[in-house]
Amino acid sequence: MYIQSFKKIASKYKTIFFDSFGVLKNASGIIPGTKEILEYLTGINKQIIVLTNDSSRGAKKLSLYYQNQQIDTLPESCFVSSGMMARQFMVNRVKRGIIAYVGTDASAEYLRDAGIVVMNIKEVLSRDHHIEDLAGLVFLDDEGFDWKDTLNDVLNLLRKTSIPVVVANSDHTYPSDEDNLSIAVGSLANMIENISGKKFIRFGKPDVQIFRYAFDLATSRKNIKMGDVLMVGDTLTTDIIGAMKFGIDSVLVLTGNTIPDQAEYLIKTTGISPTYICESIAT
Amino acid sequence: MYIQSFKKIASKYKTIFFDSFGVLKNASGIIPGTKEILEYLTGINKQIIVLTNDSSRGAKKLSLYYQNQQIDTLPESCFVSSGMMARQFMVNRVKRGIIAYVGTDASAEYLRDAGIVVMNIKEVLSRDHHIEDLAGLVFLDDEGFDWKDTLNDVLNLLRKTSIPVVVANSDHTYPSDEDNLSIAVGSLANMIENISGKKFIRFGKPDVQIFRYAFDLATSRKNIKMGDVLMVGDTLTTDIIGAMKFGIDSVLVLTGNTIPDQAEYLIKTTGISPTYICESIAT
Amino acid sequence: MYIQSFKKIASKYKTIFFDSFGVLKNASGIIPGTKEILEYLTGINKQIIVLTNDSSRGAKKLSLYYQNQQIDTLPESCFVSSGMMARQFMVNRVKRGIIAYVGTDASAEYLRDAGIVVMNIKEVLSRDHHIEDLAGLVFLDDEGFDWKDTLNDVLNLLRKTSIPVVVANSDHTYPSDEDNLSIAVGSLANMIENISGKKFIRFGKPDVQIFRYAFDLATSRKNIKMGDVLMVGDTLTTDIIGAMKFGIDSVLVLTGNTIPDQAEYLIKTTGISPTYICESIAT
Amino acid sequence: MYIQSFKKIASKYKTIFFDSFGVLKNASGIIPGTKEILEYLTGINKQIIVLTNDSSRGAKKLSLYYQNQQIDTLPESCFVSSGMMARQFMVNRVKRGIIAYVGTDASAEYLRDAGIVVMNIKEVLSRDHHIEDLAGLVFLDDEGFDWKDTLNDVLNLLRKTSIPVVVANSDHTYPSDEDNLSIAVGSLANMIENISGKKFIRFGKPDVQIFRYAFDLATSRKNIKMGDVLMVGDTLTTDIIGAMKFGIDSVLVLTGNTIPDQAEYLIKTTGISPTYICESIAT
Repeated sequence: MYIQSFKKIASKYKTIFFDSFGVLKNASGIIPGTKEILEYLTGINKQIIVLTNDSSRGAKKLSLYYQNQQIDTLPESCFVSSGMMARQFMVNRVKRGIIAYVGTDASAEYLRDAGIVVMNIKEVLSRDHHIEDLAGLVFLDDEGFDWKDTLNDVLNLLRKTSIPVVVANSDHTYPSDEDNLSIAVGSLANMIENISGKKFIRFGKPDVQIFRYAFDLATSRKNIKMGDVLMVGDTLTTDIIGAMKFGIDSVLVLTGNTIPDQAEYLIKTTGISPTYICESIAT
Repeated sequence: MYIQSFKKIASKYKTIFFDSFGVLKNASGIIPGTKEILEYLTGINKQIIVLTNDSSRGAKKLSLYYQNQQIDTLPESCFVSSGMMARQFMVNRVKRGIIAYVGTDASAEYLRDAGIVVMNIKEVLSRDHHIEDLAGLVFLDDEGFDWKDTLNDVLNLLRKTSIPVVVANSDHTYPSDEDNLSIAVGSLANMIENISGKKFIRFGKPDVQIFRYAFDLATSRKNIKMGDVLMVGDTLTTDIIGAMKFGIDSVLVLTGNTIPDQAEYLIKTTGISPTYICESIAT
Repeated sequence: MYIQSFKKIASKYKTIFFDSFGVLKNASGIIPGTKEILEYLTGINKQIIVLTNDSSRGAKKLSLYYQNQQIDTLPESCFVSSGMMARQFMVNRVKRGIIAYVGTDASAEYLRDAGIVVMNIKEVLSRDHHIEDLAGLVFLDDEGFDWKDTLNDVLNLLRKTSIPVVVANSDHTYPSDEDNLSIAVGSLANMIENISGKKFIRFGKPDVQIFRYAFDLATSRKNIKMGDVLMVGDTLTTDIIGAMKFGIDSVLVLTGNTIPDQAEYLIKTTGISPTYICESIAT
Repeated sequence: MYIQSFKKIASKYKTIFFDSFGVLKNASGIIPGTKEILEYLTGINKQIIVLTNDSSRGAKKLSLYYQNQQIDTLPESCFVSSGMMARQFMVNRVKRGIIAYVGTDASAEYLRDAGIVVMNIKEVLSRDHHIEDLAGLVFLDDEGFDWKDTLNDVLNLLRKTSIPVVVANSDHTYPSDEDNLSIAVGSLANMIENISGKKFIRFGKPDVQIFRYAFDLATSRKNIKMGDVLMVGDTLTTDIIGAMKFGIDSVLVLTGNTIPDQAEYLIKTTGISPTYICESIAT
């Protein structure tokens, strides 16, 4: 396994797509060296976009997190999230009617800001709403509701109607602290999909759509082509295979999901090969 | 689809295995005619055994339910449950150590009665117990715990240890009332198994083991052979395919999971064929 | 289930994406009325694009089929296939080295025409080629090779190398005549993926990428936006769910995979809802 | 990982169940030391039973292989195979009609010997046989037929009838030589099951039924109980998890599927724990 310097690799590209969790930050906070490398890249005029499977908040809040950590190189406009893909779907598809959401009320804000009529699934079912008013259901966050009550409600709702169901972040888990994982909303959605027999619509990496959206954003701001873009991620099955399929080069960093000991074994057994491997973006 | 009279079919067998939910009772209570047919069968000396995927309580409480409904033909000794299979596994395999359980405290009683040292998963993790004291984990019931907290705890526990995990009822759902389903503990276990990559050990129909256990019980009391036994169930994928594989005849009744409109379609698309089809056991 | 006239619906859109099999043709040949409706639509200046999961030949041959049936409204330039998506991936990603293919030699022609160095998997393995010369493997067609020999060879090759594997058509079956299906190369790829543990890269509907490619093609020729495009297909799980996710309207026709008797049931159980339902495009 | 001497462990049990492939033999022939340890165990009066997922021949031929290698301690009567389980199912369930088989003609011999009317699937379909004469279909072997022709025939046959389908060996692969695997009939059956939507009936480890059959055989010959039996196997997901669930102790040997380097990792990630680990049965 040939480990290279990220700084050196990055210099060969014009635009860099960064995954967030496991690359820029982890459960303990910002990964050391992140502030410096982002400032270096911005200084030499590289375009930076963050591609994240996150549907618990919009770009503004995603950016705010970094600003609060004294990182000023990641303004709101450089974030592309799976939640934004899901939002785009709803704006396009849903002309009228209510979108029920599973998640915190805060997680629905960026949908509401886009003019979508959203309502907590609990409220939909408890009030005098008719199921016919519903235009869709979206899984946004694993927090903000009682799992047992709400998931049972969702299951029974889906048995009685045929509305489209959107999974705005298809990740199965996320790190809750250095030693522990939390079950993500993507896993809850999988369970309901398996039980109900319905087909859900998923957004986020490894789906090519989010890469395309980010690429279109990048080209609207800078004159680049596919060969000028580099994806940096910590997960073979989302970041790296997505970049492969979309057709851009990729770096696997070993600061997140893929630990140094297993990287070679996992690349060999899955056949998902990053273009480069780096210890971290600080190297 | 040729519908026959259950009474007529049953007369040809010496021992009858009944599924419980969807055959003898449903979410509204005892299915009309159950008391009478059971008394009739007992009267003409048929042996009755109830084979149920239930791990939320032991045989005594399963029997009590029917006694409270004025049905006296189903004593404790005629119940065979998936929970009893799981209990047998734990008694055989676990010589020492604590079995953590996911479920109500009441659901663990019949394990404790068998001499197994059980402890609520919450208590195991909150106290000063060392993970090394754990000899296994068992999913018993979907009630009695906060799903979010406990399922996340279970996931993280399994990432740190290699104890066997037992699913004492592999059903995905159960009817909570006439119009609604509840997510069963089997679905929660499936979700954790998928996320963790572990292999869980499942008990209950369609596994042949529970049929074998019931058959051994039946032969210990009455001189019968395989051809003398009839399985009566409402679910193709548990009751009927299990009976087929075990090698006994079966009746599909249309009072539960398999509704009359879909029975023919489901038999055709799955290829799971009951020996007979009856509207209900009261016919 | 509300059945509408296709002619009337089509008049509301500027560009129409047609699936091929089950919509324009079936195992018996061209579906009656196809020639007339295509001429009508062309006459009133609608833009027509055919979106097909086919990797057994390139656009030229796809077009030729229709020309041989006296249909002159479908020139080579209006075909977009899953094979073309896979080809684009290989051109982008594979700078040097040989791409081994599974399929007929004819099925590899349109890859060779694009400058890709392709070689029959059998030849790769039989000659003195070193595995290191391989840059990838692509599943193109279910014909042109002995399944047993070749699939075993592919399995063992993948165990010894980590090249990317492309499935250029992810369909599971295709109709071989009016009463029978043939196992498609997508099913063979699934079997090898399951056994080998590798992650393959799939192209074609329902993936949004092919819709996007077709949309980009359409906008390069005509001034349209998303709302001007209609997808017409016979399969809920590819044509219709793909169109939903991409964000365009869709028509389900009942001349192919989804037979009239089951359409309503399937829409209800899967939750995949076309915008309209028509008996055929000839209505 | 604590490695122990097999000879020492075996001395504590009265009956020993051996897996065949990867334990007694491999693709190169008999594993060194097998003859000696079997003679030693027989000499000190241990009961030996071979439990193998094999449906390509009956017990007589399984035994003959060892006799031809000068191993006289494994008579026909000590073999229990998944094929024998499938045969028992067919004898029990199928009162009349023809069982179509997928495999070599030789692989069907032991079914024919048991009085089952078997016919090569090819012959069934080519002659003037009516589908109504068919009572079932069994997958026996990956050899003896053209995969493409026959698997397509099987798929279309299953779409037109609802006969039970039996998979007499559910293994996915078997070693064809020291470096290569062959796709087993279990994988072909999986592919057809996935495409057709039917539910197949599988026999063999890890299913508890074959362990029970072997245990009943053992107790009919020797006065033993569960605690006296040891299962020896090379595969966690069949031999070891099956023994765990059945309730007997197990030894994982490292001469087959589970290579020394990965044993610890696999036990940790799957949670399937053998009672003991030995390098080989010759230790």
